[in-house]
Amino acid sequence: MTAKVIDGRKIAKNILENVAKDIKYIKSNYQIKPNITTIIIGSNPESDLYLRLRDKACNEVGIISSHLNLAEDVSEQKVIDSINELNIDEKVHGIFVQFPLPKHLAIDKIINTIDPSKDVEGFTSHNMGCMLLGEEYIIPCTPLAVLKILENEKYDVKGKDIVIVNHSNIVGKPLTALLLNRNASVSVCHIFTKNLKQYTSNAEVLITGAGVPKLITVDLVKKDAFVIDVGIVKKEDRVCGDVDFESVKDIASKITPVPGGVGPVTVACSLENMTKTINNCID
Amino acid sequence: MTAKVIDGRKIAKNILENVAKDIKYIKSNYQIKPNITTIIIGSNPESDLYLRLRDKACNEVGIISSHLNLAEDVSEQKVIDSINELNIDEKVHGIFVQFPLPKHLAIDKIINTIDPSKDVEGFTSHNMGCMLLGEEYIIPCTPLAVLKILENEKYDVKGKDIVIVNHSNIVGKPLTALLLNRNASVSVCHIFTKNLKQYTSNAEVLITGAGVPKLITVDLVKKDAFVIDVGIVKKEDRVCGDVDFESVKDIASKITPVPGGVGPVTVACSLENMTKTINNCID
Repeated sequence: MTAKVIDGRKIAKNILENVAKDIKYIKSNYQIKPNITTIIIGSNPESDLYLRLRDKACNEVGIISSHLNLAEDVSEQKVIDSINELNIDEKVHGIFVQFPLPKHLAIDKIINTIDPSKDVEGFTSHNMGCMLLGEEYIIPCTPLAVLKILENEKYDVKGKDIVIVNHSNIVGKPLTALLLNRNASVSVCHIFTKNLKQYTSNAEVLITGAGVPKLITVDLVKKDAFVIDVGIVKKEDRVCGDVDFESVKDIASKITPVPGGVGPVTVACSLENMTKTINNCID
Repeated sequence: MTAKVIDGRKIAKNILENVAKDIKYIKSNYQIKPNITTIIIGSNPESDLYLRLRDKACNEVGIISSHLNLAEDVSEQKVIDSINELNIDEKVHGIFVQFPLPKHLAIDKIINTIDPSKDVEGFTSHNMGCMLLGEEYIIPCTPLAVLKILENEKYDVKGKDIVIVNHSNIVGKPLTALLLNRNASVSVCHIFTKNLKQYTSNAEVLITGAGVPKLITVDLVKKDAFVIDVGIVKKEDRVCGDVDFESVKDIASKITPVPGGVGPVTVACSLENMTKTINNCID
């Protein structure tokens, strides 16, 4: 049997339709022009692509996506001052800081300058801590996209054996907290894991985001697993994930492709988060 | 071979000696009387025991441990007002809220009223979030005690297969983040885990805090595992943990007993955290 291939673009479309409705409601009931501002420091071709996709989606649902461009060698204080100005600017309803940042800037200091109520990505310590403690409100977009994909399949994670291959601050660690909040049994693997197969071969749900093409071959996957590929690697002109899709799809029950899987859902989740920060500004 | 039995009281003694030195230094260099205030709402025999142990330890190192007793049926606003008063009181250098709280009070709202710089237990969303993101400063006492025990044995967790049986906000979830920050492979089990043995039998380090006596029998433990028992259950006049100590000590390489294992180290860690909040007030 071949796995059901999850259509990330369709899930994204549904999310964006709801976002568009919410934005329309906000505009017709409050005298505001929803505006999200992204601070972009220097330039990075990979994040530029993501930014273009987000700007396009914002335009479609009626959110103004402003850019604040700062030079590659900007001082940390200048970035912090800029964020503080956006925090108190009533015309700005959400703030992004585009990653990756130049190395001379302290990420945590910069992110924690963002007012948590305008923190579209849920990366401030306050929002992360709330999430860890089960008070979920603004959740980082990629983990949120994974939850949306599971929910869309009506997949209840409670008691399920789930393996995450990624332990970063923006994917693996928040996703672990979110799945523990839902009473899944969660294992987290990464580059220092000695025997990846020992973990993945027992996974009813396998979520991988290592950024290593074909890391997940068919022999690592449990029969009938739900495989969610968060990996994004550019190979020549193409984008691919961690999973050896062609072979794994024959053993998995459900699988997300790359492209067209987690990616578009992540962009849509980013816009759903924007509606939350916009609502915070109204309340 | 029989496991090395970890002497928690000895580890605690070392920590407390350092705390005493720090407090002595602070007192002789700054004109302050270190004072930690615990808000106690109603009464609870189990938490009273822990409180007595902490008060005794505070007394020994020269920290004043004040109690603010509030009635069992106190209003949430009154608790919040009391915390806000302590936040701005320059004579108070750290704040505890004694758990468990009466059911009519919202834990998260109350805890997040505490100024993170005076948050001795590291339970505020801000401090939890910082920890999740790898900016560890004030860490909840029980997870910190586990780290101290590992460090005391010079046990490097990087790449190790670690299983935690507990997914609570104050033990399992923060401990998972701390161990991921140190690049361990971490699995988290709990009451909804279908096959506990499938996890524990591969654990090089097994940390258990289910509160179920003899949950961890010898057949669940990997040979030469490091077994850390965070469980505390009162059985008649005795205190016991999760681990069937007598049988498991014959297969483990290291094991913490109950009592005399994690418990005293947790109390000592609580005092170490106090020195951090006291220092925050000086800076």
